[in-house]
Amino acid sequence: MHADSPCPVARSADLLGDRWALLVIRDAFDGVRRFGDFQRSLGAARNILADRLKRLLDAGLLQQQPASDGSAYQEYVLTDAGRDLFPVLVALRQWGERHRYAAGEWHSTLVERSTGTPLPYMQPLDHSGHPVDPAQAVVRKD
Amino acid sequence: MHADSPCPVARSADLLGDRWALLVIRDAFDGVRRFGDFQRSLGAARNILADRLKRLLDAGLLQQQPASDGSAYQEYVLTDAGRDLFPVLVALRQWGERHRYAAGEWHSTLVERSTGTPLPYMQPLDHSGHPVDPAQAVVRKD
Repeated sequence: MHADSPCPVARSADLLGDRWALLVIRDAFDGVRRFGDFQRSLGAARNILADRLKRLLDAGLLQQQPASDGSAYQEYVLTDAGRDLFPVLVALRQWGERHRYAAGEWHSTLVERSTGTPLPYMQPLDHSGHPVDPAQAVVRKD
Repeated sequence: MHADSPCPVARSADLLGDRWALLVIRDAFDGVRRFGDFQRSLGAARNILADRLKRLLDAGLLQQQPASDGSAYQEYVLTDAGRDLFPVLVALRQWGERHRYAAGEWHSTLVERSTGTPLPYMQPLDHSGHPVDPAQAVVRKD
């Protein structure tokens, strides 16, 4: 749709402005690799999941590889471009934590593996490491 | 769909896993406020745009207010919860810049208003300010 857009948000949104695509990527970060496991995790219809996996393969966010256990299964794993979506997933998660839960309502938490500490809030920083407010930023279109 | 999910990514994706919703939010950050201006910017059908604006109002990401010029128009502006999507938009933009353009292909750029400098790459940091790799993080579900 926006394959020729000069706006990087539009080009990203073409691929990622889709609930199932985002959840497939989330599961891939969580270590899910097989069709049946994605299906169980997401509760998505077979054809919808197959369509999203194909789109993400075609776009180079996932790649297929033989099963790590030597079985006949194909596995879906993130490419480097897919792994680069980590900030997108962290931003969605942290926004959801702030705005999509009642006070005290339980949710899963992203923690540092080594310490168990929740990841600090991620936000845009300037070159001095100070947070940048939306009002302090502007899109340059020329 | 995932209104009861313990996963904040799923709850965010229910609202934001939609191309038009993301582009409406992007335009709102860029200062677009009126129905006709969103429509011109997005090229979305009237009913689609009306539906997305209503969803974003209902979810508390946008609010309506009388036109700033005293005319009869209603304007749509980001709420605090909507403005908190800034990291999500920056993450989508920076991923798009890296992975959705050919080398040297032109795109718009998010810059600091005061200096004109492009915003540095945003990524999750630990409490010491060191970047956190996906492999160094894990979702705690209990």
